[in-house]
Amino acid sequence: MGLGPMNMTAPPEVFRRRRARLASSLGRPMVIFAGQSRARAYATNSYPFRASSTYIYFGGPPVEGACWLIEPGSEGDAGSALFRPPATLDDAVWLGETYSDDALAASAGVRVSGVMGVDELKSKIKGREWAAIIPPCPLTAAWARDLACNVPSPDELLAIVDMRLIKDEHELTAMRRAAKISVDAQRAAMAAAGPGNSEADVLAALYGVYLSNRAEASFTPIVTIHGEVLHGGGYHNTMAAGDLLLVDAGAEEPGGYTSDITRTYPVNGQFTETQRSLYETVLRAQRSAIAACVPGARYRDVHDLAARVICEGLVELGVLKGDPVALAARFAHTLFFAHGLGHLIGLDVHDMEEFGDLAGYAKGRMRRPEFGNKFLRLDRDLEPGMTLTIEPGVYLVPAIWGHEALVAPFADCVNRPAVEALLKGRIGGIRIEDTIHVRGGDAGPEVLTAALPTEADEVVVSSVGAD
Amino acid sequence: MGLGPMNMTAPPEVFRRRRARLASSLGRPMVIFAGQSRARAYATNSYPFRASSTYIYFGGPPVEGACWLIEPGSEGDAGSALFRPPATLDDAVWLGETYSDDALAASAGVRVSGVMGVDELKSKIKGREWAAIIPPCPLTAAWARDLACNVPSPDELLAIVDMRLIKDEHELTAMRRAAKISVDAQRAAMAAAGPGNSEADVLAALYGVYLSNRAEASFTPIVTIHGEVLHGGGYHNTMAAGDLLLVDAGAEEPGGYTSDITRTYPVNGQFTETQRSLYETVLRAQRSAIAACVPGARYRDVHDLAARVICEGLVELGVLKGDPVALAARFAHTLFFAHGLGHLIGLDVHDMEEFGDLAGYAKGRMRRPEFGNKFLRLDRDLEPGMTLTIEPGVYLVPAIWGHEALVAPFADCVNRPAVEALLKGRIGGIRIEDTIHVRGGDAGPEVLTAALPTEADEVVVSSVGAD
Repeated sequence: MGLGPMNMTAPPEVFRRRRARLASSLGRPMVIFAGQSRARAYATNSYPFRASSTYIYFGGPPVEGACWLIEPGSEGDAGSALFRPPATLDDAVWLGETYSDDALAASAGVRVSGVMGVDELKSKIKGREWAAIIPPCPLTAAWARDLACNVPSPDELLAIVDMRLIKDEHELTAMRRAAKISVDAQRAAMAAAGPGNSEADVLAALYGVYLSNRAEASFTPIVTIHGEVLHGGGYHNTMAAGDLLLVDAGAEEPGGYTSDITRTYPVNGQFTETQRSLYETVLRAQRSAIAACVPGARYRDVHDLAARVICEGLVELGVLKGDPVALAARFAHTLFFAHGLGHLIGLDVHDMEEFGDLAGYAKGRMRRPEFGNKFLRLDRDLEPGMTLTIEPGVYLVPAIWGHEALVAPFADCVNRPAVEALLKGRIGGIRIEDTIHVRGGDAGPEVLTAALPTEADEVVVSSVGAD
Repeated sequence: MGLGPMNMTAPPEVFRRRRARLASSLGRPMVIFAGQSRARAYATNSYPFRASSTYIYFGGPPVEGACWLIEPGSEGDAGSALFRPPATLDDAVWLGETYSDDALAASAGVRVSGVMGVDELKSKIKGREWAAIIPPCPLTAAWARDLACNVPSPDELLAIVDMRLIKDEHELTAMRRAAKISVDAQRAAMAAAGPGNSEADVLAALYGVYLSNRAEASFTPIVTIHGEVLHGGGYHNTMAAGDLLLVDAGAEEPGGYTSDITRTYPVNGQFTETQRSLYETVLRAQRSAIAACVPGARYRDVHDLAARVICEGLVELGVLKGDPVALAARFAHTLFFAHGLGHLIGLDVHDMEEFGDLAGYAKGRMRRPEFGNKFLRLDRDLEPGMTLTIEPGVYLVPAIWGHEALVAPFADCVNRPAVEALLKGRIGGIRIEDTIHVRGGDAGPEVLTAALPTEADEVVVSSVGAD
């Protein structure tokens, strides 16, 4: 009938083990909510439901308003229960068949008696202390308002972070699936790019691939000839020969795992000399950074390495003056590369950003305060099983060059006329991004999105050749 | 640069007049919030921003976190002010250029001094009584929580409803634009439908047209071979010869105005005899209902007319027994046609549903309580300028026929073996929907979505011919 597959990304026993591990770390019960679909213009016009990532991670099936209760203790998963809202006749008529308790229990790996109506949750936690993991948009049920008081402790959140940080084989399989769809979509985008077409045409091409694969966009795609706006939107520009198009987009496969890719290319297939030089600089930075992603490396150091490579390129081009290492040490690159090198990725495209910097930053580490540096989302020592992005860029941002307080400290090392020429040229912004998986041993990182080329000439061939 | 058009749907003086009219009806200030973009999996991964409809209606430009202050009084629009969040350097780098106060003032039709930073709102309303029109998802700013206490009165909401209910020429122009994109998308959907393709392929075709026109889906499209699930989702089924595909989808044009169309057709271009008979019944009901949408007609009577036509068809087919008029009077059709005939449509696809039934139901009227009847969203006397949908349907819903309490009262007039045969046949659900505009005089209603055929043979030709 109308009931679709549950898109669970691991077998039941894996979810059971995950819950058992969490349970053994807890000192009080934890309730992990799936959340509700979000209203668009008005309450009943909602976006498709997407369960919260932590709920999915512990085996939650795609049921709006459901939640996990994880009981503390060392007896494995015995104390876990899944609560789901009851289905009414109206639900059946409007929304169709509901997964049976049997089906939910089987896919989530709990006993059927461990699947209950959500109203029973109250009796289970009545008079006890407990922690609530709630999605960013509040629950609509009136009683759920109380939940916001049951704030989890940092240790409780870290128990989850430590687990989600290292991807197991099931998660990697799902991420490879997301990467494949993301690559296919970027290829379709390249085919739709070209002088006379609009950014909106390219956006439509991306979604065509996502949706026909029953995937979603893992975030609102950036498709712009103004790559200098880091998270620009709007899609209203028409491409013209000489423009560089920046497409930063990724898929979320049906199980919820994500991918993230950026490619930047000339819409008519021809880099200008300056465009190519900057492109090659960004590409060198990206390749150096990827190669440096080995177990034990500190991600902030990898970011700083990419910054040095970018300074080298800008010195070669005559835009910066001086020793690239010294330039990067005083953060001269932040005038051109104003964001972080990348971020964790998994069930969220910025994985676990819902927990602030608890996931991205190792204990005792904090964000550096300077403009540019403060946007670095990740500073951990890398471990096998981590998945993250590497996405350096070079941008000519008018807002930066119009902000004297930012620029003045670098007056001695910036060739301002050269910068002005670049600002007038059609550079905008160039970013190259792949999603990678840190592997143990000597294998080096696995580039999950490697099927899409990054070499300048190959990117050009892909975009023009497909016309 | 990166800044796009504002997509205002009327000239400034029209917005000014709308605000002046509202102001003259108010006894205290009203603040109308644009709202924030909604979080998806985590807070910073948000859906594209869509301002709230009432804010748009009164001339609000697409600025997240902005709001209108409308001062009560008869001096026209003099007391209206637009508040917008200040833009920081980080915003400029990440989100790009911001509309200037001058540009906002010009498009919204206020003086430049009437555009202020949102922090100034507090000083304007300090110590006064005022009413807040807030979007369904709460504002994130801490101080905004107080606003939920400033609940508008029914009279204050009705002042808005009375205005939004009757569309002016600018709104109709926008709705024709939405209708055109919706028709084009439905044609693309028909071309993508066919045995072996998936519902997801059809969904992708719809979005291809929406997005390349810089439109959005006005609601999550229903694309299903199980039309008996009224608001089904999932898109996981593969179409096979013999299936009827139901596609209920519409566009929201860049200014926010919406359209809504349903077509149902055999994926291989061939109706079975029973399918065609039921299709013709639904089509007759739709045409009769559309023709009845003249000024002065009560919408509930139009719904009841469609119900009678459906009963006639079901009697002819031998599924119901008795006099169609009497059958409709005892609501026998609700076993097959369990929803309302249609709804208001405008800036929201269920226009103003955020105000409960204040918009859909005329003063003193209430929903009928019976299953089926209770889902009727509109019961007003029609007036020129109203826009609404007409969408009768016939469905074979297992959940209904498995619910004896619903079915038992009709045991005398239902040919149960015939129903069982239909349930086993591949009927699912058939719905035909257009968006219409009630006109004055003798012209009859304007079918905004008339460019897409409804005649059975033409629908078949459109879907098969485009292959």
